[in-house]
Parts: sequence; C-alpha cells; structure tokens
Amino acid sequence: MKQINGGVCAAKGFKAAGVHCGIRKNQSKRDLGLIVSDCPARAAAVYTTNLVKGAPLLVTKENLADGKAQAILCNSGNANTCNADGPDVARAMCALAGDALGISPGDVAVASTGVIGQPLDLTPIAAGIEPLTADLGYDNSLHAAQAIMTTDTIAKEAAVEFELGGVTCHLGGIAKGSGMIHPNMATMLVFITTDAAVSSEMLQTALSTDVQSTFNMVSVDGDTSTNDMVVILANGLAGNAPITDQGEYFAVFMKALNTVTMALCRMLAGDGEGATRLLECHVTGAADTAAARTVAKAVICSSLVKAAMFGADANWGRVLCAIGYCGAAVDVQKVDVAFASAAGRVEVCKAGAGIPFSEELAKQVLLEKEIDIQVALNAGEAASCAWGCDLTYDYVKINGDYRT
Amino acid sequence: MKQINGGVCAAKGFKAAGVHCGIRKNQSKRDLGLIVSDCPARAAAVYTTNLVKGAPLLVTKENLADGKAQAILCNSGNANTCNADGPDVARAMCALAGDALGISPGDVAVASTGVIGQPLDLTPIAAGIEPLTADLGYDNSLHAAQAIMTTDTIAKEAAVEFELGGVTCHLGGIAKGSGMIHPNMATMLVFITTDAAVSSEMLQTALSTDVQSTFNMVSVDGDTSTNDMVVILANGLAGNAPITDQGEYFAVFMKALNTVTMALCRMLAGDGEGATRLLECHVTGAADTAAARTVAKAVICSSLVKAAMFGADANWGRVLCAIGYCGAAVDVQKVDVAFASAAGRVEVCKAGAGIPFSEELAKQVLLEKEIDIQVALNAGEAASCAWGCDLTYDYVKINGDYRT
Repeated sequence: MKQINGGVCAAKGFKAAGVHCGIRKNQSKRDLGLIVSDCPARAAAVYTTNLVKGAPLLVTKENLADGKAQAILCNSGNANTCNADGPDVARAMCALAGDALGISPGDVAVASTGVIGQPLDLTPIAAGIEPLTADLGYDNSLHAAQAIMTTDTIAKEAAVEFELGGVTCHLGGIAKGSGMIHPNMATMLVFITTDAAVSSEMLQTALSTDVQSTFNMVSVDGDTSTNDMVVILANGLAGNAPITDQGEYFAVFMKALNTVTMALCRMLAGDGEGATRLLECHVTGAADTAAARTVAKAVICSSLVKAAMFGADANWGRVLCAIGYCGAAVDVQKVDVAFASAAGRVEVCKAGAGIPFSEELAKQVLLEKEIDIQVALNAGEAASCAWGCDLTYDYVKINGDYRT
Repeated sequence: MKQINGGVCAAKGFKAAGVHCGIRKNQSKRDLGLIVSDCPARAAAVYTTNLVKGAPLLVTKENLADGKAQAILCNSGNANTCNADGPDVARAMCALAGDALGISPGDVAVASTGVIGQPLDLTPIAAGIEPLTADLGYDNSLHAAQAIMTTDTIAKEAAVEFELGGVTCHLGGIAKGSGMIHPNMATMLVFITTDAAVSSEMLQTALSTDVQSTFNMVSVDGDTSTNDMVVILANGLAGNAPITDQGEYFAVFMKALNTVTMALCRMLAGDGEGATRLLECHVTGAADTAAARTVAKAVICSSLVKAAMFGADANWGRVLCAIGYCGAAVDVQKVDVAFASAAGRVEVCKAGAGIPFSEELAKQVLLEKEIDIQVALNAGEAASCAWGCDLTYDYVKINGDYRT
C-alpha cells in the first residue's frame, strides 16, 4: 500500500471541481464543489445521529437508497438545516447538477455545511452550475476540497494505491471539519472515491465498520453536528474482480480505506478550530475495545486536558480525572500515564499515583505540535486511539462570533 | 421563608473560621477552614461519582457512616487526590482537628480542593490548627467560604430563616467551585448547616433528592471533579420537633434547603472559570423530567452555545443542534426557542425552524450578565432548569496554566 496524491481524483475516472458562486461573501473563497464519476458508481454513506438532520442528508439518503450514485454536489456557507424549504432546495440542487451532467437527479448526493437556520438561496447555485461543470478536471480534487472548507485552515486530502488480485486500485478522499466536531456514527463532510469494484453492500459494511475506529474517535468540541456525512463512491474502473463478500480482498480494501480515513482524522483534529496542537490518546491494556474507546475519547474531550495541552502543562491529574468519570469500568489504581512527542517521552503517573518527573523534559515534549497521551490500563489486551486538539483563545474567538 | 445573611453561621450554634496556613504561596489567601457545631449534629453527604475519588472523600464517608459529625475541616491549594499517602494525611487532618476541639476524630468531616496528584504536606496544617481554632466565631462564615476558594472570584454564601411548627429555624451554606464543574450526584465543595432537628435518614433523603435538581444541573466545563462533596450538618438547636418522616415539616425543610442550594448553584455557574455571563436554560413542555433535564443540561454544556453567548450572538441553531444530540427523545419539529434577560425577550425559533427577529434586540438581550435560554418542547408538562456560563478567553487562560 502506497500513499499518493490526488485526493478524490486519485481513483480512475473521477473528476472534481470547485468555484465561488456567491453563497459566501468572500469572492476568493470557493463555496460550491462537485465530484463526478465517468460511469455510475456503487455508493454507501453514514450520517449524523443528531435528531436534527440537515435537509441534504435526508435527500442524499433517498438518492442513495438504491446503492448507486454518480456525483456529489456540495456547498459551504450555509448548512441548509432547520429551514422549512430545506428539502425542496436540496432536491433542486440535485436537479441542477443532474441536468448539467446529463444524469438522473437521483444519482446525485448533496451536502451542505455552514450556518444553521438561515434559508439557502438557490440563485447563486443555479448561476454557478455552469462555471462549476466547466471547472471539472481529473486533477482538481483540491478545488472541491477547498469548496467545502468553513473555518478549516487547510484543505484535507488523502489517497492510497493498493493491489487487489494483481490489479492496481486507488482510493482517496477529501474532508472538511474544524468545529462542531464530535461525530457519532459519522462525521463532518467526507467524500471518498475508489476505482475498485465493490458491491454496494460490502461498501456499506466497509464504511460502517471503519468509521467506528476513525471518524467516531475524533472530537474538537463535543458538539455532534447536524450535517455530518461520509459518502464513498466505487466506480470499478480499476478492473479488479468485484468484492462481494468479506474475504481476503475485502480485508485489503478495508486497509486501504482505513489508511485514508486515519490520515483524514488526523487532519480534522489537527485543524480543529483555533487548535495549535494535535492530540492523540493511545489507550492500551483495556479489558475490551469499548472501554478503550470510551477512555480515549473522554481524555481528548476534556476541556481541562485540552486547555492544559494548550499551556504545555503536564497536568496529568486531569487525564486521571477524565478516565474516572468516563463511565468505563476502570481500576484507577492500575492506570499509567505518559506524554510523548517528537521531543521525547515522559512518564508522569504509575498505578494511579504521581511519580517524580522532569518538568523541563515534560515542557519540551508538550511544546511540540503533535502530542501523544499514552494511557495504559493494565487490565487486558484491547487498545484504541482518539484524536482531538487543544482548547485555545482562538476557539473562543472563532465561535464567539461565527454567525455575524 | 426569608433570605438572610450568615452563611454556615446563620444557624444557631455553628462557628466558622478560616486562616492562611501556608498550603498556598499567596499569604493573603486563606487556605484552611473549619466549621464547628456547639453540640454533635446529624450529618449527611453526597459525593462525586468519579471513579477517581479524593482521599478526603473516603475518610469523610468512613466518619459519617454513623450519621453524625460535629466539625468540617477543609483546605484549598491541594486536592489530596491520586497520592499514595492520601488517606493517611486525611485521617491525620481529622485527628488534628479532633484534638484541638476536644472531639472524636471520627466526628470530623474533611475536604480538600486544588491540584490533583501532588502530595499534601501536613506540616503547615498542623501549625495552622491553633490559629484556626482561635479564629472560630459565630459570624465568621465568610472566613471559611474564603478558605475553600481556588479560582473562584467571589465567596459563595446563602442562608434562609423558616418556621417548623411555630419554631424559627435556620439553614445556610457555603460553596466553592469554578472549574472542573459538572457534578454527577454531587458537586464541588458545599457545606450546609441547619439548627433544625432532622434525623440522619431524613437529612440524607433531603440532600440526595435536592441535588438532582440543583447541583447536578450545573456545569462549567463538563469535567466531573474527583473531589465533589456536599455535606450537611443539622444540630437541632432550633428546638423544633425532630423531623423523622416525609410529612409536612419535611416539605418545609426541603423548601428551605432548595432555596439555599439554588442560590449557591447560580453563584457557582455565574462564577465559572473565566465566565462573563450566567446561563440558565429553562426547558418546558417535556414528556418527563428526565428528558427536560437532559435537554437543559445539553444546552448549557455545549461549547458552541457557550462561545456564542460570550459573543452575544443569537446563534440558536447551536441550541437546536445540542437538543438534537443530547439523547432525549424530542420531536425537533415542535421545538420553540427564545432568549430572555433583563433587557427583554426575543423569540428566534418556532416549530424547529427559524423565524425573523430583530438582531438589534437580540444583541441587547444577550449583552446582559444573566441570560435565560428558553426551550419549549411542546410535548408534555415536565420542566427543568440547568445553570452554566459562557466560554471565554479567560477560561482558556486559567486552565492553560493552572498547575505551574
């Protein structure tokens, strides 16, 4: 398996585009994106578990019910959520894209991100469809990635090349997400494409399994968005024997998918709103995977841990505190904690109690951009990892005045 | 029922004290406090549900097992938690207080608050016991309230006078708490005294019932502390007929207790670390109390709602979002939301969708110090209230470098 460039255009037969159509005021910011497969593709998706669901999710769910799709239309600047006319607008967006591409509106997935509760005006989107399709290209993944950015500071792309029975396949994705990130069975907007041939059923199985250890383990602020959606399209143009069951090739495909989603997770967390550091919490020695995940996520979700990491303060008591309230059955008298980064590793807690450590080394370790909080529960063999970021002045600034 | 001054000294026969003994470096900050009843008192308590429990909680639980206590010794600057010698130090503190007061160490409750995981040195406490007992006075509640302050900016006291069968009784309390506030079955340090005669059993029933609608509905940062504790002492010196069952007098006593605990809750939330605004979320029309509480708490816990309130931004979509992910079975198409304060009231969402409103009025409403987020679920008769605060630059500042 090899990491490559190209994002959603890394796989054969996928074009992408992104333009500024006017949903957002800043004219230099792309706000409308499109991903198109040269031929109909198998499709699968996972969606937010928030009871408040954006209208685009409802419409995408309808359109993907047959396990097929050929295009994804997406916009930033407005989430099209909590609007009375939301579903009508989302369906109209699919119709606009279908007309322009000469495909059925029912083969278009639609996604929106931005402010909640303000009507989404169709006018700029209708006017933007022509320049958008004109921008379609086999190496324009970045344009689409930019079109879905909101408070994101970097465009997020990842791709891999892998072999299935001697056939070279590709899988790549783009993601957006920076705030309101605490996915539950899904995540922010993530679009993944592959030229591998995979049945709709196995595609859904792969995606639903993968998100449990990837996007569902990311949190920026504990707020589960109304518009979280991950969509994957598989157009089969690589020419491999189609994957239709959980055999050897499915395992290889899962590995390819996981390599791309893990990379996107790290990008999402590291680019959390206002973040200066990526936090990873590796939990080992758990009695079972559920406990490992609960502990890892509690640590990276704790406001106090996040603020301490911003201050490069080795305040491990807050890590223990988070483990204690997370709800997992943990013997806190057995817990070890260490902080690690490119600058080194420092053990701070053994068997639930503090041990002497070099404050100087701890400071060096915590001043790095990527911090690993290592928690050993010493109670079993299960492990997990969660991704988050520090809590900073800029998070407050960004969210104290996002809407106006 | 009349609100009065006096805190934990409002009830007959209770003395309090607070001195600087040297646990904290700042010599002008009291760090050791004491509350003493003139005679043995009935006692009840609730404790944190965090699996990591401060050593003082374990020792207090032992000492209150017989339903009696006569004194509470407390310190700030060190939580005596996650230390191998923690229980020994906590027991030694009880012995020091017992000796100085001429009572059994088993009649002393002990509480500590501050940094986790650093050994608590007994030396300054031993040296401070004599000045501490010398400071004991029938109007020194404030000294004890100051001794438990950490990042608190105001000392928190409340008291009421009430009648039980023609006998005038008093009940008052002090509280500390500003960060790591997300109580679950208990709260930060709260000490309550009353001169009403109440059996240990009914005292525990009253306290356990009350915290469900008071301290358990407060959140500053979602982090449940390891040292949360509420202790109540009832010395019976008012001379009322002892309350031993859930009759008419118990209801009056509950009302008195609730009046004091609600006042302390508002003080705790309003003085949350870095807070500039007190947030109240009143949920009405819920199918049951559990749903009302879940919704109210989710709204005041949302980082995004909290940051929007800091920015006086009427971003009601975030309120809907929090309701949607909180886990309560809510019909989001029926939800109404309004913001209210001393400056007026503005309706922003009807039946799950936005309605036109004056941004100018909304700004005026949200610039006040106490904001009421009113959520009508239109699904039943149950209601609840939760208390929180905004998320500010100063919360990040305080917690980015608390330990060092």
